[in-house]
Amino acid sequence: MTDQMTVEKDLTTGGRVGYLRIAVEEAYAPPELVRSFRDLLDRPDVDPGFESLMGFYLRSDAERPRAVQRKLQDLGDERLADMDSAGIDHAVVSLTAPGTQVLDVARAREIATVANDRIADACLWHPGRFSGLAAVGFEDASSAVVELERAVTQLGLKGLICNSHVKGHYLDEPQFYPILEAAEALGVPIYLHPQTPPAQMIGPMLDAGLDGAIFGFGVETGMHVLRLIVAGVLDRFPRLKLVVGHLGEALPYWLYRLDWMHAAQVRAARYESSKPLELTPSEYFRRNIWITTSGMAWPPAIMFCREVVGADRVLYAMDYPYQFVADEVRIQDDLPMSRDELRAFYETTAVELFNLDFPRLAQGGGDG
Amino acid sequence: MTDQMTVEKDLTTGGRVGYLRIAVEEAYAPPELVRSFRDLLDRPDVDPGFESLMGFYLRSDAERPRAVQRKLQDLGDERLADMDSAGIDHAVVSLTAPGTQVLDVARAREIATVANDRIADACLWHPGRFSGLAAVGFEDASSAVVELERAVTQLGLKGLICNSHVKGHYLDEPQFYPILEAAEALGVPIYLHPQTPPAQMIGPMLDAGLDGAIFGFGVETGMHVLRLIVAGVLDRFPRLKLVVGHLGEALPYWLYRLDWMHAAQVRAARYESSKPLELTPSEYFRRNIWITTSGMAWPPAIMFCREVVGADRVLYAMDYPYQFVADEVRIQDDLPMSRDELRAFYETTAVELFNLDFPRLAQGGGDG
Repeated sequence: MTDQMTVEKDLTTGGRVGYLRIAVEEAYAPPELVRSFRDLLDRPDVDPGFESLMGFYLRSDAERPRAVQRKLQDLGDERLADMDSAGIDHAVVSLTAPGTQVLDVARAREIATVANDRIADACLWHPGRFSGLAAVGFEDASSAVVELERAVTQLGLKGLICNSHVKGHYLDEPQFYPILEAAEALGVPIYLHPQTPPAQMIGPMLDAGLDGAIFGFGVETGMHVLRLIVAGVLDRFPRLKLVVGHLGEALPYWLYRLDWMHAAQVRAARYESSKPLELTPSEYFRRNIWITTSGMAWPPAIMFCREVVGADRVLYAMDYPYQFVADEVRIQDDLPMSRDELRAFYETTAVELFNLDFPRLAQGGGDG
Repeated sequence: MTDQMTVEKDLTTGGRVGYLRIAVEEAYAPPELVRSFRDLLDRPDVDPGFESLMGFYLRSDAERPRAVQRKLQDLGDERLADMDSAGIDHAVVSLTAPGTQVLDVARAREIATVANDRIADACLWHPGRFSGLAAVGFEDASSAVVELERAVTQLGLKGLICNSHVKGHYLDEPQFYPILEAAEALGVPIYLHPQTPPAQMIGPMLDAGLDGAIFGFGVETGMHVLRLIVAGVLDRFPRLKLVVGHLGEALPYWLYRLDWMHAAQVRAARYESSKPLELTPSEYFRRNIWITTSGMAWPPAIMFCREVVGADRVLYAMDYPYQFVADEVRIQDDLPMSRDELRAFYETTAVELFNLDFPRLAQGGGDG
């Protein structure tokens, strides 16, 4: 299936617009995960954010959640047809939120393995169309490291998906250091993807219907990124690569204030946990963090973000199937950028960041 | 004290730069409030966010909190000298966070009255230099309405300060409707100012030293604004004016996603609480909400914000004494705007929004 015919058929836009459109935050759910989620929803002690999110997507009869549920589980014809219709050449697929991170330790390990195998299979069947990120069971860090190494070195996956908190815990906590260390050593990025805030944080957001993608996702994930920064994790792992969707979960808008207030609170020794760092918070955004446009197909914000974090750090993502809108691709095609900038935005930044090696590139073709 | 000499002495920049610099988020604490805060800190059931914030400002020996504590309580020589040194002509003063909103009902009422009288006195003594917003005890809505009416109609105060949540409750809850109704009827804006998130939300932010101005303030206050929108409060009170600091607590960056996700969740009937609205979320920003630059003296974000919410809705604030930086005034003087735009940004938008009537304007002078 990796022969020349398949590859050429796979390239839907490269020859036409001068760049491949690579989408890097594209969600997949193995049916086994969906079954685990359904089991969790029936538990009396279900996490309120999980119940809000997956109770909606798995139980609602409305059109959008039903379509999302079906599309999430497909890595074949429907997804490829949707990619074709939207003009997406290549998708970097990852385990949908909250992934393994709400499961018990053993089940998390199993689902990670299943997801990685399934995604790797799809990449083998459609090498021009799919790459993938690895899932792991974060709570058991030593097996997570083994699985991440297997997924990257044996299955050819290109990074690690982290769907934000792990039952209320965050990657800045030392029990997760071995996983960060392995990602750094392998040279693969960690995509910090949203999920609903944990029970200790969701209260007034949930009451008002603001816990999900409308607001709570950004709060949760932006906080996760900041925790990694202020805890000094990016000093400990200076070559760690983080990818943050939704145009950086609003953190680019806050960079000035983050730098100002971080300096002020460190100077005043306000927090035991807030030690001096080697760089300012905004400098980590220019060294360790890449930002994608998932769900934020809005030219003013994209251009602002490029201005403040650097044009070479902002790349395209669709957020399929949660946000599957062909118009949004056209909006981003029309961004006020040169052809070279658009190619970096849609194609080459993703290729370099994730070290993508799908056939079209190996052949050096399709430069438009 | 309102004679010509005082007024002229009061105008420090109007004749020089062509506009008055009016700062509209400037904090004051009567000593009685500071004593109440100290009492609260000693209680075993103290709110964790309050303890983090006021434990720092009232107990730390570091330079910044000591200076802030002293400057907060001054409405005379030190504040005027600081305004002169930074080039601030006029300050709209309000009760510092968390204000009355952590106090018991009776004490909240007392402190509001004291604060309003004290601020009104300062405005009488320095009519060219100070205007003020009213404080109320929100938990007792009927007395809050009486106090707001007294403060506006008898004391000449220009709006209402709300330091975000009231012991974990938000202004979209019906018990607060009489206060919103009174503000709308009086034609005065409500300034939604940050405080630390409530106990139901602060958990992982507090652990990481992110609960304060560095991050938690924005989360808390942005959520408060969104709650008012999605609950339909701005349909119920369509002429209500809200003022939001820190360049809108990142909500301008989220406008596209807010509109998209709000429409999606209403269409799918995901939440009982999320009913259809008369406008899109972003449209309320262009009808009911004004945005100030407090703590965000950063040209890219200011210009982005003006672009997406409208130049006529973005105005200057310093956030004295928490952010007292003369350089930041110069940064904002140098924004890429025409003289007329700068005058709107620093002066006329504030005058219209708060219906300011200090002597300089009555005389029609100082047009540069």
